[in-house]
Amino acid sequence: MSWTVTDNGFTQENIAKNGNTFMIGNGYMGYRGTLEEYKKEQLVAVTLAGLYDKVGDKWREPVNAPNGLWTQLYLNHTPLNVLQMDTQQHFQEVDFRFGIHRRQSVFLAPDGNQITFKVERFASMDNLHLLAAKASICCSEACELTVETGIDGEVWDINGPHLDSFHSNASELEQPIVLSAISGELKVPVSIAQSIRLDGGEQELVHSAPSIYRRIRLHCQAGVPYTFESFVSVYSGRDGVAKPEVTAVHDCQQALSQGWDVLRQKHDAKWEEKWALSDVTIEGDEEAQFALRYSIYQLLIIAPTESEKVSIPARGLSGQVYKGAVFWDTEMFMLPFFLHTDPGTARNIMMYRCHTLEGARRKATEYGFEGAFYAWESQDSGDDACTLFNVTDVFTGRPMRTYFRDKQVHISADVARGIWQYYSFTGDESILLEGGAEVILEVARFFYSYAYYNTAKERYEILDVTGPDEYHERVNNNAFTNYLVKQALEITLETINLLKERHPEVFTALVEKINYQRELVAIPLMLSSMYVPLPDLTTGVIEQFDRYNTLEEVSVKALKERMLDKHEYLGGGNGLATTTKVLKQADVVLMLHLFKDHFVKSIKQANWEYYEPRTEHGSSLSPCVYALVASDIGSPDWAYPYFMRTATIDLTGESKQYVGNLYIGGTHPAANGGAWMAAILGFAGVHFHNGVVHIQPAMPKDWTSIGFSLKILGQSYTLRVTADQVEVISLDDNTRSQSFCVAGRELECVAGQFLIVNDLTQDQRSTEEASVG
Amino acid sequence: MSWTVTDNGFTQENIAKNGNTFMIGNGYMGYRGTLEEYKKEQLVAVTLAGLYDKVGDKWREPVNAPNGLWTQLYLNHTPLNVLQMDTQQHFQEVDFRFGIHRRQSVFLAPDGNQITFKVERFASMDNLHLLAAKASICCSEACELTVETGIDGEVWDINGPHLDSFHSNASELEQPIVLSAISGELKVPVSIAQSIRLDGGEQELVHSAPSIYRRIRLHCQAGVPYTFESFVSVYSGRDGVAKPEVTAVHDCQQALSQGWDVLRQKHDAKWEEKWALSDVTIEGDEEAQFALRYSIYQLLIIAPTESEKVSIPARGLSGQVYKGAVFWDTEMFMLPFFLHTDPGTARNIMMYRCHTLEGARRKATEYGFEGAFYAWESQDSGDDACTLFNVTDVFTGRPMRTYFRDKQVHISADVARGIWQYYSFTGDESILLEGGAEVILEVARFFYSYAYYNTAKERYEILDVTGPDEYHERVNNNAFTNYLVKQALEITLETINLLKERHPEVFTALVEKINYQRELVAIPLMLSSMYVPLPDLTTGVIEQFDRYNTLEEVSVKALKERMLDKHEYLGGGNGLATTTKVLKQADVVLMLHLFKDHFVKSIKQANWEYYEPRTEHGSSLSPCVYALVASDIGSPDWAYPYFMRTATIDLTGESKQYVGNLYIGGTHPAANGGAWMAAILGFAGVHFHNGVVHIQPAMPKDWTSIGFSLKILGQSYTLRVTADQVEVISLDDNTRSQSFCVAGRELECVAGQFLIVNDLTQDQRSTEEASVG
Repeated sequence: MSWTVTDNGFTQENIAKNGNTFMIGNGYMGYRGTLEEYKKEQLVAVTLAGLYDKVGDKWREPVNAPNGLWTQLYLNHTPLNVLQMDTQQHFQEVDFRFGIHRRQSVFLAPDGNQITFKVERFASMDNLHLLAAKASICCSEACELTVETGIDGEVWDINGPHLDSFHSNASELEQPIVLSAISGELKVPVSIAQSIRLDGGEQELVHSAPSIYRRIRLHCQAGVPYTFESFVSVYSGRDGVAKPEVTAVHDCQQALSQGWDVLRQKHDAKWEEKWALSDVTIEGDEEAQFALRYSIYQLLIIAPTESEKVSIPARGLSGQVYKGAVFWDTEMFMLPFFLHTDPGTARNIMMYRCHTLEGARRKATEYGFEGAFYAWESQDSGDDACTLFNVTDVFTGRPMRTYFRDKQVHISADVARGIWQYYSFTGDESILLEGGAEVILEVARFFYSYAYYNTAKERYEILDVTGPDEYHERVNNNAFTNYLVKQALEITLETINLLKERHPEVFTALVEKINYQRELVAIPLMLSSMYVPLPDLTTGVIEQFDRYNTLEEVSVKALKERMLDKHEYLGGGNGLATTTKVLKQADVVLMLHLFKDHFVKSIKQANWEYYEPRTEHGSSLSPCVYALVASDIGSPDWAYPYFMRTATIDLTGESKQYVGNLYIGGTHPAANGGAWMAAILGFAGVHFHNGVVHIQPAMPKDWTSIGFSLKILGQSYTLRVTADQVEVISLDDNTRSQSFCVAGRELECVAGQFLIVNDLTQDQRSTEEASVG
Repeated sequence: MSWTVTDNGFTQENIAKNGNTFMIGNGYMGYRGTLEEYKKEQLVAVTLAGLYDKVGDKWREPVNAPNGLWTQLYLNHTPLNVLQMDTQQHFQEVDFRFGIHRRQSVFLAPDGNQITFKVERFASMDNLHLLAAKASICCSEACELTVETGIDGEVWDINGPHLDSFHSNASELEQPIVLSAISGELKVPVSIAQSIRLDGGEQELVHSAPSIYRRIRLHCQAGVPYTFESFVSVYSGRDGVAKPEVTAVHDCQQALSQGWDVLRQKHDAKWEEKWALSDVTIEGDEEAQFALRYSIYQLLIIAPTESEKVSIPARGLSGQVYKGAVFWDTEMFMLPFFLHTDPGTARNIMMYRCHTLEGARRKATEYGFEGAFYAWESQDSGDDACTLFNVTDVFTGRPMRTYFRDKQVHISADVARGIWQYYSFTGDESILLEGGAEVILEVARFFYSYAYYNTAKERYEILDVTGPDEYHERVNNNAFTNYLVKQALEITLETINLLKERHPEVFTALVEKINYQRELVAIPLMLSSMYVPLPDLTTGVIEQFDRYNTLEEVSVKALKERMLDKHEYLGGGNGLATTTKVLKQADVVLMLHLFKDHFVKSIKQANWEYYEPRTEHGSSLSPCVYALVASDIGSPDWAYPYFMRTATIDLTGESKQYVGNLYIGGTHPAANGGAWMAAILGFAGVHFHNGVVHIQPAMPKDWTSIGFSLKILGQSYTLRVTADQVEVISLDDNTRSQSFCVAGRELECVAGQFLIVNDLTQDQRSTEEASVG
């Protein structure tokens, strides 16, 4: 089965899209799937996680580092370059088993000479600061070729330039060449060192500020490949090293001394480890298998495995789109993958929220509330990067006031839930003690200050919010939000009880520190009369928010026919959807997934059937939710197309890439995570709840089986699920037993045990147990 | 001093505007200032108060009756008509002392004959169903003239036709001719009878469905005027008569038998009575005198003196604009005039709200609230005529969702305040017993169900409202609204106490009837922690609503320069003003007027100075408020231009008349009332509060004196105020004494007394008292 995505032939139109599809990365940096000769016009980007910069009054965004892998060939001063010359043959691909980007182009010179240019590269998973490339050039006729390769300091930025004070200390070619610069706003140094291992040729150093590169003259013989290896090390002042430039140089020298093969071996070994934890095997559906693995790849190359100061932005590390900001996407659509397969990364993701608590406090204060109001668009400090005017009115060209920043208060509840989920999945209390408890308590305090008590109805309500369905801003009692807030209050009480019981001195100190005495009384009272919208007694439908039912009934298709401009925004102040029942994305249905234990199947089904035809799926977050709930209600046939749509999003790259000159494309890690959720939590029906792993398969008809691993409470399991049978292997080095509940049958699985539960669809239930062979 | 507004010469462009300026009426009907030969294309309208109709899904609007005064002259089949023929001389005028409309046109025939056509008409103040006209025709040369005069059934409507099933029973010319029809929606019969007193001529009856008229052939002698008198009676099924047609015929016959002179005498006598109560004399400023009297005239011709089932629409009876609906304008800007001069009409206006309580209850229920949520646009039933989409987006041509209907909740408080003011000014408890108390209690109940308790801040707040400044929709804690709501709660407690003490059985029955036990406990509690925004401790400025201070600071001028279309709406979802501090009209400043006793001068001045430059005055309600508060703080020079702008609004007629083909012009009774308020409550400084008439003059520099009458607690007073002196005459037939407080000096004025307080501007105060001479 293939692990490679390939694009054969070159077309100008695919440059931006391919930049995403063929991206490589390692969580420290993302490297867009661009070709070696590309410059900033082709959106080359080495995006550094967690390093942000702001120019003037433009919005803050991540810093792209200079591109240390830039390479350009010349034959008699004619550039061999896909942008300027037709190729006889060309492909670009990524091997997502090992995160290897490859390109091969055959250029035909006017004299008939065929020059084949092949390059492989990777962003090392072993040393996250390292990029490596191995290039090979082969000519059909002997010729003189020039290769220019080195560090392209002309960095692509949306709102840049973010780096200035470029300088290079490269003086002799034996050493790595190095380019350093400083970010404009926060004065963070960034250094890129490049070293090269050559087969031969004559080298000279070219300073072409702000770039620095080598010019190599080659005497190519017919049919004899010439190869060279490049090693690039990237460090910034945020990496905990005293002198980024010195470290980069040192790192680069080390890489050079090890060479491509060794580095590649170490890199591959790390990938093997990753896939051992996270691979999902699907028998019977090659297409789904391919897309799901690719989705998982996209998550693995952006996972913050080594830093708890960063999380995953909404467009991953595929550039600066969406300001490189972390949205609720991370907790809701990516965290589950990591919780089940890589708790360490899940911990980093949630610790990021602990480290940004002060920003959340500042935002709450700004709006006149107490506690922690998390940023809708969070960067390094946790202050909100979201502007009040996010959309341009196509009819007037004016900025349009939107309420993403002000009113999507559920973000704070999402954060509290994420921290508690991490604790629940791992039993690792340390996250609570290292800031998680404080976050949870401050989130509850925020909602206590945000909520209002309806005296006439004797209940707390959450007013004036925007739920996931952003087409309806400033609504009251959004069901999604209210359930999440209620859960945040419950989590707060659980946290308080846990601390009281197990860490009383921590509890006392925390209450003292954050002056939480009033809330200790108020939060339980608020919880006891917290309003959540209930299903309608007749239809079972939960109203998305107060008075949603009074909105205009119109089909998505009919609504779209009213559009006067294909780019007009359907939400905001006057958007076409705002006065109708049409929703942007799953809202109530997402809540039904999050609270699947609270609702019976008929309610889930009623809401799925009610809301789906009214959903535009205008967000890439939407289809996977419908897939999840469709599986939950035993209709995997409904779920399957949503799953596939989600799993292929970055393969087809059919999303919009530009608005005017503004690049808005990028990868879709939330959809990538959503694809994993749809497969494992949906089709395989895994649901960890109250310490028990529930499994209730609902398999697509062509799927013979689905196999995957789980990490639960520090133990590792391998599972294989078919429509009728579930196999669970508790790995030998597990230390404790775990309760499973398979299709309603409760089982205890002790360490090293191999459980088989079959005849799932029969009334007669039987359970086989066997030791691992 | 002139009491006549005249327009000399005819211009097509002035037709619509003159229809307002030269309007006559009597509260039962309004008759636009159109010429006799005009048809529906010239917006002829006989608008019937309180009779509404709806066609299909178009909005409901008042019914215009057929025009019984239509008249057209012909000379040899050539129409003598200002629309088709130049006039040698032409004027149109209204004598607003007696509500007489006059026109005179001299037509020059091709043969040199000069035909002078003069008509006077009035809408009788003695018999409100009656229109009367007296026409005179005089030719310079003998000729044969044809006069067609009668009932034009081709009625102008915005959203009509509202009348169908036209029929006429006129068979012989001795009888009045009569045209009857039935309204489409509610099947209300409407009948117009016309009789005529002729000098001679040959008559024939012309049926030209739906019209019916007389054709009169005249043998005119040179220089000998020919006159005829027309009498038109209008009745509908809403007038409490069994057979409107029969009554109309009878009425018309009676009028005919009395003739023009008698009818005119009775009419004039009624006008004398009206002016005796309501005239204001200004010495030293002819222009202001003229404009103010004209403003009062506009109020008098639409005052519902004889019906408590109707109130005054926002455009009076000048047609169907604004759906003929009653807005808060009536309570806030017109009621004060009637409260001080004509309590009977004030009672009718407020009884209208009692009669429409059920509509207010339905609206509250519709929105999920309890009690009485009064209509933003109220017609006959009190159901809200306001649509959810009141504005058309100029950029897309689409209807724009606005929140006038949903969120201007202050209307309910305005109603409660109006009823209580009527009671306070008159001592007439009957309004409370006949529905007023029930309205007040239901208004409080509405706000109790609308309000939310902020547990963290321990206070009730009023969220998600639109205040008078409609450019900022859906704001929290709008100062104007919160103060009004608080007052409504206070009024409720006063009402409860009054009933308990003086009408305990009524109280018990009411509490039982409307199931008010819970509210008897809840309302005092709500009042005790009702939040009202207080002045900033440093600046004295009261924030218009929560977070107003965070909006963009931009001048009105600069804001308007951003407009891309001169008709674009500044409010709504995306309007230019919505994200700035620019306000449509007085909001906080109006509150400071309403609660003038609550705030010291420095606070009023700080807010006036802060908000005035930020006010667009985009509503005709705005300038008078700034005039009132400017006078209140002793700056009549600031106030004067706002007063004049308000008082001349229907004289200059400079407001917009059309949007596309839709007529949106009309008279401005709220501004008319505002002009009176600015003069009496502002410059003369009259303020009736807690049973005391306070007088604190702040006279414009050119005003020598201002004289006026007041009706307070059933007693009548005549006042003359100068900058330095106040004279009060308590009329002889008064029965009790009254406390006055003139410039801080408290005085008791017994019946028949003549008080003079002078040296107002001196520290040394002296008071002269004298008996009326």
